Amino acid sequence: MAIPKTLQWRGDAASGALHIIDQTLLPARRVELALADTDALVDAIARLAVRGAPAIGVAGAYGCVIALRQGLGEAGLERVANARPTAVNLRWAVTRVRHAAGLDPQRALAEATRIHAEDEASCAAIGAHGAPLVRQGMGVITHCNAGALATAGMGTALAPLYVAQQQGRSFRVFADETRPLLQGARLTAFELREAGIDVTVIADNMAPTVLRNGWVQLAVVGADRIALNGDTANKIGTFGLALACRAHNVPLYVAAPRSTFDAGCAGGADIPIEQRNADELRRIGPVQTAPEGVAVFNPAFDVTPAELIAGYITEDGIKQAAQIAPWLRGQ
Amino acid sequence: MAIPKTLQWRGDAASGALHIIDQTLLPARRVELALADTDALVDAIARLAVRGAPAIGVAGAYGCVIALRQGLGEAGLERVANARPTAVNLRWAVTRVRHAAGLDPQRALAEATRIHAEDEASCAAIGAHGAPLVRQGMGVITHCNAGALATAGMGTALAPLYVAQQQGRSFRVFADETRPLLQGARLTAFELREAGIDVTVIADNMAPTVLRNGWVQLAVVGADRIALNGDTANKIGTFGLALACRAHNVPLYVAAPRSTFDAGCAGGADIPIEQRNADELRRIGPVQTAPEGVAVFNPAFDVTPAELIAGYITEDGIKQAAQIAPWLRGQ
Repeated sequence: MAIPKTLQWRGDAASGALHIIDQTLLPARRVELALADTDALVDAIARLAVRGAPAIGVAGAYGCVIALRQGLGEAGLERVANARPTAVNLRWAVTRVRHAAGLDPQRALAEATRIHAEDEASCAAIGAHGAPLVRQGMGVITHCNAGALATAGMGTALAPLYVAQQQGRSFRVFADETRPLLQGARLTAFELREAGIDVTVIADNMAPTVLRNGWVQLAVVGADRIALNGDTANKIGTFGLALACRAHNVPLYVAAPRSTFDAGCAGGADIPIEQRNADELRRIGPVQTAPEGVAVFNPAFDVTPAELIAGYITEDGIKQAAQIAPWLRGQ
Repeated sequence: MAIPKTLQWRGDAASGALHIIDQTLLPARRVELALADTDALVDAIARLAVRGAPAIGVAGAYGCVIALRQGLGEAGLERVANARPTAVNLRWAVTRVRHAAGLDPQRALAEATRIHAEDEASCAAIGAHGAPLVRQGMGVITHCNAGALATAGMGTALAPLYVAQQQGRSFRVFADETRPLLQGARLTAFELREAGIDVTVIADNMAPTVLRNGWVQLAVVGADRIALNGDTANKIGTFGLALACRAHNVPLYVAAPRSTFDAGCAGGADIPIEQRNADELRRIGPVQTAPEGVAVFNPAFDVTPAELIAGYITEDGIKQAAQIAPWLRGQ
């Protein structure tokens, strides 16, 4: 049993391939794809076979190697960068490789490897700083998937759990299934089981009962964006979990790398919330679950106010909300 | 547009039939079944084509008419009563018909019609007492389905909405989809749309954001059992909704007939909570949504403490928790 490796480059720049776990097939099947062609790589990113901001960035960096060795030049890099237009990390990684390597596949592989290593190191540091929160025999609850499958390393929210396990402690994890896209049931449950961690899936609406039963002493979640005041946008349902944690005196921590903190956002009200397709709440696979055409409100994220967050587990240690602004300014 | 009629007897005792909406096909298709045979009736109850405690009771009462005219006698009544062994209302209704009518189908139909009328009257009274809470232009949130489809009348939690609509007020309803069985998305959204009420489906974990956005001023839910102190067992997720309502100063009312109050339960701790099949959280229809064999916690109900409940909308008016015991004693 081991933490799954979401992304691995195998081979040299000329003939190697990016190996990924196809997340669209989880949890029913674990299939590894070897991506050695720009079309296949762009397709894998576009159809969410690889997802999670850090993982997408690293996949894009390796994608540059493939596009350049195929002689696609700038146009090829642009295709990789546009595989998911809203993924900030993807364009960031492609731009970084372009600046460091020009159009040389060999140097592109060196830079992609560095980006990969940095993400692994960032996850490991978050894990090391958060692990002392995870004590022997405790119960932990998490929401969505901010784990190894979302990064090129051991994840953000799940990293403290993996490090605690490596340090020899055992504990029980409750994974919210995370409607509507079920990343908790599909992905978090999968990777924790792969790693040999005791995990129980619950519907999101069961978390308050789990808390009331006294079964968990810690909540850890990831983040999509954190404002200067500590207000945190994360997968829809995080705010409700935070309210239930507060009602039961269970601390909720947000685990995220420095790149998730946005100095341009003063508070949660400044964070735009994406509305997703209504059909996510009207059907599950082929099954119609709501009346055809019924109105739906389907925000991708919610905002948890800083007052409900016990601390922020970062690669530089655990921060309180008041420390965020000086930390980002480098003070 | 009209409130759907879940159950209707058409014809006389000798040749009539119980017409029901087959709820297993909602929301994709509205199909009416005419049940004129004991086998068909027992099957419809067993496979949840008709569900909701009051509706099952009324269906069972009419089922006695069918069993008796087929000459099945006591054994036929017993088959009807056992169609869903845990449904207390079902056995209660069959026993009542047996006592009132003996084995005479004609008199059984008269008693079944009375049971039906009493349920309709109870729903209407709950609606009349609760309607003043529903003001013009407001937003209302509800969980699961405690509506017309669960009763032989206009429902419990949804009755105040229907009466408010009949009184000419318009308002907007948010229906929690209600994992895992999606009664909110499938049934509540269906019947409110049929009645011409503005309804928006949300995942359960979106309710805190709807509340934070200031879109609702009232929450109304049904109940499976209410203890003497007011602690209320209802569909899983009610407790989390109640916590989120409290955090946003939105009153949550429980709507239920007197028969839902259990003088034998002092408080919520006395209410047994049914655990349901783990596969409800591992697959949706043919789609596998969690790893095969993963551990699951799947309680059917949760308990909302009385301190989170603004009042109880009953056929005898709106009660506070402290009034429940004297009311049940007839004082």
